Amino acid sequence: MVKPVDTPVGRLGLSICYDLRFPELSLWNRQKGAEILSFPSAFTVNTGYAHWEALLRARAIETQCYVVAAAQTGKHNEKRSSYGHSMVIDPWGAIVAQCSERVDMCFAEIDTSYVAELRKMQPVFAHRRSDLYSLHINEIDNDISPMKFSDHPIAAESIFYRSGLSFAFVNLKPVVNGHVLICPKRICHHLTELTDAETADLFIVAKKVQRMLEKHVHVHVLARRKGDFGGQPDDLYKNLSTHDKDPQVKPRTQDEMSAEAALYREAMKNL
Amino acid sequence: MVKPVDTPVGRLGLSICYDLRFPELSLWNRQKGAEILSFPSAFTVNTGYAHWEALLRARAIETQCYVVAAAQTGKHNEKRSSYGHSMVIDPWGAIVAQCSERVDMCFAEIDTSYVAELRKMQPVFAHRRSDLYSLHINEIDNDISPMKFSDHPIAAESIFYRSGLSFAFVNLKPVVNGHVLICPKRICHHLTELTDAETADLFIVAKKVQRMLEKHVHVHVLARRKGDFGGQPDDLYKNLSTHDKDPQVKPRTQDEMSAEAALYREAMKNL
Amino acid sequence: MVKPVDTPVGRLGLSICYDLRFPELSLWNRQKGAEILSFPSAFTVNTGYAHWEALLRARAIETQCYVVAAAQTGKHNEKRSSYGHSMVIDPWGAIVAQCSERVDMCFAEIDTSYVAELRKMQPVFAHRRSDLYSLHINEIDNDISPMKFSDHPIAAESIFYRSGLSFAFVNLKPVVNGHVLICPKRICHHLTELTDAETADLFIVAKKVQRMLEKHVHVHVLARRKGDFGGQPDDLYKNLSTHDKDPQVKPRTQDEMSAEAALYREAMKNL
Amino acid sequence: MVKPVDTPVGRLGLSICYDLRFPELSLWNRQKGAEILSFPSAFTVNTGYAHWEALLRARAIETQCYVVAAAQTGKHNEKRSSYGHSMVIDPWGAIVAQCSERVDMCFAEIDTSYVAELRKMQPVFAHRRSDLYSLHINEIDNDISPMKFSDHPIAAESIFYRSGLSFAFVNLKPVVNGHVLICPKRICHHLTELTDAETADLFIVAKKVQRMLEKHVHVHVLARRKGDFGGQPDDLYKNLSTHDKDPQVKPRTQDEMSAEAALYREAMKNL
Repeated sequence: MVKPVDTPVGRLGLSICYDLRFPELSLWNRQKGAEILSFPSAFTVNTGYAHWEALLRARAIETQCYVVAAAQTGKHNEKRSSYGHSMVIDPWGAIVAQCSERVDMCFAEIDTSYVAELRKMQPVFAHRRSDLYSLHINEIDNDISPMKFSDHPIAAESIFYRSGLSFAFVNLKPVVNGHVLICPKRICHHLTELTDAETADLFIVAKKVQRMLEKHVHVHVLARRKGDFGGQPDDLYKNLSTHDKDPQVKPRTQDEMSAEAALYREAMKNL
Repeated sequence: MVKPVDTPVGRLGLSICYDLRFPELSLWNRQKGAEILSFPSAFTVNTGYAHWEALLRARAIETQCYVVAAAQTGKHNEKRSSYGHSMVIDPWGAIVAQCSERVDMCFAEIDTSYVAELRKMQPVFAHRRSDLYSLHINEIDNDISPMKFSDHPIAAESIFYRSGLSFAFVNLKPVVNGHVLICPKRICHHLTELTDAETADLFIVAKKVQRMLEKHVHVHVLARRKGDFGGQPDDLYKNLSTHDKDPQVKPRTQDEMSAEAALYREAMKNL
Repeated sequence: MVKPVDTPVGRLGLSICYDLRFPELSLWNRQKGAEILSFPSAFTVNTGYAHWEALLRARAIETQCYVVAAAQTGKHNEKRSSYGHSMVIDPWGAIVAQCSERVDMCFAEIDTSYVAELRKMQPVFAHRRSDLYSLHINEIDNDISPMKFSDHPIAAESIFYRSGLSFAFVNLKPVVNGHVLICPKRICHHLTELTDAETADLFIVAKKVQRMLEKHVHVHVLARRKGDFGGQPDDLYKNLSTHDKDPQVKPRTQDEMSAEAALYREAMKNL
Repeated sequence: MVKPVDTPVGRLGLSICYDLRFPELSLWNRQKGAEILSFPSAFTVNTGYAHWEALLRARAIETQCYVVAAAQTGKHNEKRSSYGHSMVIDPWGAIVAQCSERVDMCFAEIDTSYVAELRKMQPVFAHRRSDLYSLHINEIDNDISPMKFSDHPIAAESIFYRSGLSFAFVNLKPVVNGHVLICPKRICHHLTELTDAETADLFIVAKKVQRMLEKHVHVHVLARRKGDFGGQPDDLYKNLSTHDKDPQVKPRTQDEMSAEAALYREAMKNL
């Protein structure tokens, strides 16, 4: 899942062709700040005339984004023709530019102030009932800034995975080999404070990390660890504090931690 | 979130008016077996002509459901007029019936074999990348059948909450007061076997149960419990086995368990 | 040009397929009282998705008629597929019923009171600038009622041709062989009283009759006759009156006249 | 009726707003060479969303012209709002540019080679059944070139009226005062050679000239004249020839004729 990118005309969400049939992707792009959605495509003539315009317009309306949909046109061979009809749709759902039924170009103005105006007028993303439904996306966050675990600073080098709402990092004083922590990006002191989306993200990342440790690092995951690092950061912190106070346990150097994190980071990629 | 209901013409998903702007609801209805989506509405004239048809058609196309959208029409008072244009759309996105611009009725045939045919031809719900994104819905399942926890039968009376993919039940031999279990409906022996959707659902239910216990039953949730009941059912089961073997611990009667479950069941409703 | 026919659900204008591209036909059907236009068709897929709906809706809107368009669907052979999408459109332009993309049927209510209401609300046919433009249709009127030429009754048997606005008949006391008369159905005493449409119709019929007489009856048309019978019925009548008063000239019997008219009537068909 | 005008981007037919509901005007513009139709408009919101797009697209498709439709938008006062949605449609019926629902501008490329290509591919104007229907437009032709009456040259100064297919001029040797001639622009030697459109045009102009002579010049129109000048140019010519050969009859000077034509020309304007 590639996050929207900033362009001179606005923040652009990247999808193609068949993605258009999956509203989840467009909603996520909007959540990640997209003002424009792009759908370079090669619809068939048959699905093109039946679905192309309605789906593009709906994506624009429901995400309040411009939709820019370049599309192949004409005959590829005897059996396959593409529908064409490249179009640009404004965030209110109007087709503001469309190519003619042949090789063609079209132009439209992208005005992000119009996007902002419509979102203010009808704040559908503020109206979502996040207590009733939430969309989880396995987003990989390539950010490299340091984070906080409660009020403890965590060096970027110690972090080996970042999702949309969570991050995973190695332990200063691991109890056992593979003793890592996963916590929500937003600082919460209790599981019940997490939103549904954060809860989902946290444990999906936990599952992913567990899979990595078992498959790629051959670390046995202890039963109690799961609940600890994700479920109750505060309680975990208490445990860690006790652990910390044990003079027998020496804190590791950042280099040691960075090396372990690097190992895991690589292993996460191969998952 | 009300699940689709069975009707003589097919399984019917229930949404209204503004819900139309939130594709998540329609997707979930489809996932719960809907063949028809209904949207009784009162759109304004302005949003009606701009959005009504495009959104309804897109919902039909992306969920491969018939869409039946009854709509108020005409002037309510000096300031408010409704758009009308009640319509029925087939699962390929064609408007198969529409009311004229006045008080009117229209008729359409609902043919669920067409729904089945289109879904077979273009299986978009099988093509979803559940490893990349998943939609969590806080669904309340009113089913009353007994369940299984690993190979242990759990009486319906012991179960106090059922979501779409998980269920929560009281313990035969609770270690402490409020010692309950939450597990996925599908029998899995390891966290990593859970799909993302099951993982999200399991821990969102766990959070909900924890909130209930703390708010409504004033039970303190122990740190280790969370991971136990949700994360690693097998390991938990080992613990429970040991606990079971302790001759000091007497299993409770079903009546005792049913009473506790009834208490929690009621408290979950007040959440 | 076949005039609209009365049916139990309203007056029905008959056109097919390619006719849809010629607004003249629909306008004429409306002028002849059509409340419903029918267009049984077999559009290709390509022209179907590009033009079918827009043209049908425009015909409905501009004529304020229901449009009922049955359409072949599916593959005829390797090279040809028909677009389908049979639809019924109301006189305000809304698609009130449409077939799904396969062999299908659809139903719609035809409410001629709605037709009447819309025509009253927006009387576009009364707003036509008949002084600026008029549509001439070579309509063959199969009516068999007697007519009037000024205040002279003309037996149906004497009439050998009726167009939309004119009729042609044989003479009681012909000056020469082939001396026939063509006059507007509406009684006018002066050319300048004729509408443009009547003027056009009168002289197009005159031309048609002249062609018939020359080609099929081998009658030489005299120069002065043309203006006489069409242009200035009154003046002609004066001439005829004088002619009448000539005791030498014997009026013909109706049988003689009917025989001549029958000859011409037949010849007009072969034109 | 203003004829299309040549512009740097193509020949432009001029219509406005309510004209859109009258296909005759667009057909005539196409017949007069338009490649682009313009419809600056102020549709109401209600008729806008119901009719604007369908009618504009149909005009483009049936005339195979670009349609450029600038449109007022927004609230004029408490009671009246305009629909906006200025748009440009290509000759295949696709919306190639459209303004957003607010004060806006849009751009589209006009490619007259596309117009030509589509007209060649589907020659609907060559397919018109001119023997069955014809559209008469009271077109005023402001051309100033000399014409021919049979093989007689007629000076521009002698011509006092030009319609689309006919012209009216004063006589070299008038038999009586107001003895004028009306003849088709295309040289025909017999009434039956005229197309229906030429026949309609010729006699509608004749009627118009007669009305002018009677109302504005107080000339009594003789019965026999009508048929003469319009119906049978050849026979008229014979008469004129005889008349010409009469040594008593002196041909008028061009100045005399120009003066009479100028009088009539002015009177035609006041009709």
